[in-house]
Amino acid sequence: MDTIKVKESIQHAAESIQSDVVNTPILQSQYINDKYSVKVIFKCENFQRTGSFKFRGALYGIKQSIKEDKDCQFCGHSSGNFAQALAMAAKINQKKATVFMPQNAPQTKVDGVRYAGGEIVFTGNTIVDRENAINEFLTTHKNYKGLHPSNDYSMIIGNATITLEMLSENSDLDMVIVPVGGGGILAGTALAAHHFAPHIKVYGAEPSGAADAVASLATGLIQPSIQPQTIADGLRTQLGDVNFPIIQRHVTDILTVDDDETIMAMKDVYQYLKIVIEPSSALPLALIKKYPKVFANKRIGIIITGGNLDLINLAEIFK
Amino acid sequence: MDTIKVKESIQHAAESIQSDVVNTPILQSQYINDKYSVKVIFKCENFQRTGSFKFRGALYGIKQSIKEDKDCQFCGHSSGNFAQALAMAAKINQKKATVFMPQNAPQTKVDGVRYAGGEIVFTGNTIVDRENAINEFLTTHKNYKGLHPSNDYSMIIGNATITLEMLSENSDLDMVIVPVGGGGILAGTALAAHHFAPHIKVYGAEPSGAADAVASLATGLIQPSIQPQTIADGLRTQLGDVNFPIIQRHVTDILTVDDDETIMAMKDVYQYLKIVIEPSSALPLALIKKYPKVFANKRIGIIITGGNLDLINLAEIFK
Repeated sequence: MDTIKVKESIQHAAESIQSDVVNTPILQSQYINDKYSVKVIFKCENFQRTGSFKFRGALYGIKQSIKEDKDCQFCGHSSGNFAQALAMAAKINQKKATVFMPQNAPQTKVDGVRYAGGEIVFTGNTIVDRENAINEFLTTHKNYKGLHPSNDYSMIIGNATITLEMLSENSDLDMVIVPVGGGGILAGTALAAHHFAPHIKVYGAEPSGAADAVASLATGLIQPSIQPQTIADGLRTQLGDVNFPIIQRHVTDILTVDDDETIMAMKDVYQYLKIVIEPSSALPLALIKKYPKVFANKRIGIIITGGNLDLINLAEIFK
Repeated sequence: MDTIKVKESIQHAAESIQSDVVNTPILQSQYINDKYSVKVIFKCENFQRTGSFKFRGALYGIKQSIKEDKDCQFCGHSSGNFAQALAMAAKINQKKATVFMPQNAPQTKVDGVRYAGGEIVFTGNTIVDRENAINEFLTTHKNYKGLHPSNDYSMIIGNATITLEMLSENSDLDMVIVPVGGGGILAGTALAAHHFAPHIKVYGAEPSGAADAVASLATGLIQPSIQPQTIADGLRTQLGDVNFPIIQRHVTDILTVDDDETIMAMKDVYQYLKIVIEPSSALPLALIKKYPKVFANKRIGIIITGGNLDLINLAEIFK
């Protein structure tokens, strides 16, 4: 990709979605900084509309698509957060959205889609189930455009706007850490850092029970996510052909943590940062604790990707 | 009190503590607004230093005391939040703080005091136990000044700065609701509203199992808090002779909710606002749901007073 074009795309996306997205707060905790021997700022996309960062890419993707075809409607598949984001972004633009979700999606994410007026089609629990269902739908619904939750250039550029916002008030960061599932937020973060603050290292945090991205980087080929075992329901997916080359080129490294480490970090976020996050969002802090040689004494930006989870699951985690 | 003097005191307090306090974020949830048929803004003092609004008054009280006697040290009694606030505010001013806490204070509040370098003296669980202990301490520690968590003019004025901040960006509110325990935040809020936006009605939200403030207003005499039964550990205390006259004069009404209603509201705050709050902070939203004739279709400011609680208690609440 042309360097100037990417930079302009990210700026264009930021301007294009600005009036409809929340410029999310940045929080810090002296206690967490002391405990982990770092200086961390948390960019809180759990306060984004629909409770996750996915709203930015969904909105930008819809706006771009409407430019090309003003009569199109939208569909997508999602384990939950993208479903809510797509439904709300469509609603804002007076469009319909049909989303394909696994039967085991958290109830709060299902409720969120319905609240935004989205139509839900439940599928089996694997990505292949969802992709098959949406492909069949698209063959019979010619006016619908399918938007991919992570492997789509508009999503990646939409995600990049988070880092752009974060850097506008915190240009002195050494590194940024984000979780890795489908790779959309990691690719967007890496692109934004590369084009606006190339001194910043970008790390991915992946569950050790779903470490397909680490394997993909190691082999140079996208590895499937087969029977992922992790509490982080947003990170059970795999990389795609649009985001993988960006990740290969611009990401410093992807490191893993297990679910126990994720839960420990999650507790620290609830206790000291006072915010509600879903398990996926705890991985970057868990990474800092596990790999002090990489992260100690650094100025680190963490993107809190979302806060959608069933409270009954919190009871299980905190008991 | 002289009107001009009060107004100037609040402005003076705001300037005096500004560089050491967090100008806490204001959050909203479209979902909550729709569900409760209101427009609510939440001023999030759970993001204040030490995790509660108490830091403002403690800091202002200490700064004012040091002006009068630069060599004094500090002590106070608290069920937890004021203890942490006093310890941290003392530390910032290179002072010592000794706090008298009940044995049943949440562990996180105990840890917070220790983190801030405060010295803890555990007492029995009643207010009388704490007051007796601190009075005995003061007879033998002449260089110590006792600061009261709620019945002290500096605390009340410090608390008033929250409403001042909230109004600076939201002057169009119809009313503000805050919880009532010792009465400090209610008196501070009422003073600020009266002097900066007299059209705003101020309501107190009190647990029905600890409704001494309602009884105090009804009888015109401060009623003791005898065997309070409520999940809201910060609201088990009673009004005092400094804040009661302010509450009598400037508060529109105090209404009650029971613990089940509080827990329902607490769940909504976690689920839709994505923030960690202690039970006491959920009462104002519970009030809105219970009394639609008073609150429906109004523009309402709610002060989220704190976010300090043991996560194990969340497991119990959300199960």
